[in-house]
Amino acid sequence: MKNAVGREIPAEALAVELKNGRKYEPYQGKGYRDGKYIKKAGPTTKIYENPKESKLLPSIREAVIACGLKDGMTVSFHHHFRDGDYIVNMVMKEIVDLGIKDITIAASSLGSAHDPIADYIEQGIVTGIQTSGIRGRMGDVVSHGKLKTPAILRSHGGRVRAVEEGDVHIDVAFIGAPTSDEYGNARALGGKGDCGVLSYAVPDSEYADKVVVITDTLVPYPNFPPSIHGVNVDYVVKVDEIGNPKKIASAAARMTQNPRDLMMAENTAKVIAACPWFKEGFSFQTGAGGPSLAVNRFLEPFMDEIGGITGPICELQRKGLVGKIIDVQDFDVAAIEDIRTNPNHFEMTASEYANPANKGAFVNKLDFVVLAALEVDIDFNVNVITGSDGVLRGAPGGHPDTAEGAKCCIIVTPLTRGRMATICEKVVTVTTPGDCVDVLVTDYGTAVNPARKDIIAALDAAGIKHVPIKELQEKAYSLVGRPDDLQWEDKVVAILEARDGTILDVVKKIKPYQI
Amino acid sequence: MKNAVGREIPAEALAVELKNGRKYEPYQGKGYRDGKYIKKAGPTTKIYENPKESKLLPSIREAVIACGLKDGMTVSFHHHFRDGDYIVNMVMKEIVDLGIKDITIAASSLGSAHDPIADYIEQGIVTGIQTSGIRGRMGDVVSHGKLKTPAILRSHGGRVRAVEEGDVHIDVAFIGAPTSDEYGNARALGGKGDCGVLSYAVPDSEYADKVVVITDTLVPYPNFPPSIHGVNVDYVVKVDEIGNPKKIASAAARMTQNPRDLMMAENTAKVIAACPWFKEGFSFQTGAGGPSLAVNRFLEPFMDEIGGITGPICELQRKGLVGKIIDVQDFDVAAIEDIRTNPNHFEMTASEYANPANKGAFVNKLDFVVLAALEVDIDFNVNVITGSDGVLRGAPGGHPDTAEGAKCCIIVTPLTRGRMATICEKVVTVTTPGDCVDVLVTDYGTAVNPARKDIIAALDAAGIKHVPIKELQEKAYSLVGRPDDLQWEDKVVAILEARDGTILDVVKKIKPYQI
Repeated sequence: MKNAVGREIPAEALAVELKNGRKYEPYQGKGYRDGKYIKKAGPTTKIYENPKESKLLPSIREAVIACGLKDGMTVSFHHHFRDGDYIVNMVMKEIVDLGIKDITIAASSLGSAHDPIADYIEQGIVTGIQTSGIRGRMGDVVSHGKLKTPAILRSHGGRVRAVEEGDVHIDVAFIGAPTSDEYGNARALGGKGDCGVLSYAVPDSEYADKVVVITDTLVPYPNFPPSIHGVNVDYVVKVDEIGNPKKIASAAARMTQNPRDLMMAENTAKVIAACPWFKEGFSFQTGAGGPSLAVNRFLEPFMDEIGGITGPICELQRKGLVGKIIDVQDFDVAAIEDIRTNPNHFEMTASEYANPANKGAFVNKLDFVVLAALEVDIDFNVNVITGSDGVLRGAPGGHPDTAEGAKCCIIVTPLTRGRMATICEKVVTVTTPGDCVDVLVTDYGTAVNPARKDIIAALDAAGIKHVPIKELQEKAYSLVGRPDDLQWEDKVVAILEARDGTILDVVKKIKPYQI
Repeated sequence: MKNAVGREIPAEALAVELKNGRKYEPYQGKGYRDGKYIKKAGPTTKIYENPKESKLLPSIREAVIACGLKDGMTVSFHHHFRDGDYIVNMVMKEIVDLGIKDITIAASSLGSAHDPIADYIEQGIVTGIQTSGIRGRMGDVVSHGKLKTPAILRSHGGRVRAVEEGDVHIDVAFIGAPTSDEYGNARALGGKGDCGVLSYAVPDSEYADKVVVITDTLVPYPNFPPSIHGVNVDYVVKVDEIGNPKKIASAAARMTQNPRDLMMAENTAKVIAACPWFKEGFSFQTGAGGPSLAVNRFLEPFMDEIGGITGPICELQRKGLVGKIIDVQDFDVAAIEDIRTNPNHFEMTASEYANPANKGAFVNKLDFVVLAALEVDIDFNVNVITGSDGVLRGAPGGHPDTAEGAKCCIIVTPLTRGRMATICEKVVTVTTPGDCVDVLVTDYGTAVNPARKDIIAALDAAGIKHVPIKELQEKAYSLVGRPDDLQWEDKVVAILEARDGTILDVVKKIKPYQI
């Protein structure tokens, strides 16, 4: 069955079982579920009616046992520690050592720090992966069909929807926290491994049956105001280190000095300035990457920034160009330092950021979002998950959420990367549907989605040149040639959920290359 | 059927239907549900997937209509505006004017500001009341059997449990807020009617199907950090005034100068100082009333204060005697001013404060709580709801929650008030069960619950005199005489829920006095 972005969704994918009994549908187009209703799930919660001195347990192993973790269960993790995370591997090792099997990992994202999980997949111990990002060895083994069930890949907002709607039920959430008190009130600042905010872990704390906070820095009760509330936490474990601080908080992200990036950034700023939503107090989000972040320097009016935060954004705020910063993830030391002291830098939950099924997330209030892409096709579909070899090595992250929510979604990307065309006829995998993408800015010109006649009119009025996207694709192919078609087997190895829980695309098993 | 505090619970009360199908049980004793599990309820939530400019509606009437409010539904309110509240009456007038009937009001508390609701009860429009406090004309008409169904009276923690467990399902929550943005992010500070915190409204915002924020002060989006999160809010209405600021925030509560109160306070402080939990960093809660608040002045070590907050507590903090203040309600201007500026004064949710069915509320961490009472009987049962005439005119509030949670619950009350014995053979209504009350301090002596052999030993070791509670009751009767038995009809007019959702006692219809 073909979906609204023209992808064939096999029956095998549509038949994948969700915990709440909901049936998968193919993607139906932007805003399909708007105005409909969902019944929120509720966890099963132990009653702690009597006073308890402490929820402290001496080890992760004892917490796994105390939670009653057993075969077939789903465990969850957050990704605020990024490549410095120790939690996933520490917890999974204990689960595996205890002989527990058929485990599904439902993480807000997974990365190259989690290569050891690839072994558990190959051994058939980890049988399900639900995540935004998938990279490194894990992406490799999943792409080669080693995971027992299709991986389910979701946007950050789509994950919160799935948790709240009950598509996935988290049996035990393991939440790494820079600080916690003995009752599980946890914060992202202080201790050895500051990560700024714990936004992505909040739904896990609210919807999992059992919640374990793992910290390397116990602080006196009450650790207030908490990001993770002790009233949702069953156990607290102190370990030596939750992660590698150097990799949790990387050095400050720098504005790009690459002239091509700066040219694209300036052109993007001109597009923004030509749009009717560009006025004092506009709301803005940029990705952390070079050209999209650089757009900030060309924009002068007062704005609010949301989403993943970097030092340069905090810098703009100190200059008076940014009003409030509403933060869901910190990418560098400077951003983490900033939220510690800046009264106009706030943490929000993952649901507040991007959930399509609450009563209005921050992404809905975005005027502009500027995003990157691995590939964009002539229908404006974007791929940020599969490489040119078809292997999983990316993350939809907040890309589909901000693209749908913002009044104007701008993709900034060079026309080619190395010898690959970035603008192509058909992306390998659709991760953000073209009906949510409005403008494409490349180093060879700008294209506007024909559906956005208002933006076309605004650019025309401002004298900003734009071309049909087909011209950009043809230019790209003329420079680096048409890419060979990838070879796939029939087996579905991953499902790309649209943020509303329909199926946007599938990734199939890589076929050994035939010469 | 007699319950664990010896009260006969009629079948009529046990048969009252709860929304989730749970069956009422008689009270089984302290900690009966500890370690058991509940499945949390989940609201039905509209999906706001598309960007929305605003959730603003021009009037409460239009919000009532937009929410689809109809016959038989349950609406909820919070009590942070205390006697200055305009919200309940404004909303109920619109509901009644629209001809909607068979309405249940599920408020965190109701007070004398809500006398007009008594008319709607008499007219049969309001058919159910669920609240902590009930006073004034409303208490009167309910006591006289005018409400169609028994009123359900809960502690603050018991209410959160009931909402989260689904005993009560809130169809539409109306939340008065000192400030809100157009997306429903609401805070308790700023505007014309500051109330300090919005703790009691949080469960309503999380568990109601529809949520309406009513404010008199719209502020720019985003109003962060919010107490009520816009992701849970359907509509925002701006009105001229949400309440009478003079009655919302009364002048600073003063320490009592009454010598009898000060003597009892000093004796209470001596009891506390003799207990093993009295050490630096102990956790403490006092009621707002004269003698219990005055205990603070006799206690010198460093402590944390939780619960309802007054100016004198903030004053102690400024002197370095109180560490953190964790606040669920502000009783005066000074406390509201303090939370605005004091980095160690925090808001918590009602669930964090007192819910017996989460994973551990603040009350569980209390070392001491000092509380008042209308009556205490020889089994240490406390009444804070019915007057000596049997009419409803009080509120369990946080009394049963803190009494069960604290390591040591001390009731401070004079032996007699006017011509009534405070210490009696049998309280009119049990609102806090005697198995949760540890010490009674009166102006004629101190009694310790015989179940607390540890406290008896501690007082003996410190040379603090105490007597059997029976002696205090006999002394009271010798001073003012034995009270006449009250006359009741059979009809149950109110159910007193224990905080765990069992039935502690019932209040019956007042019988016209027979001469």
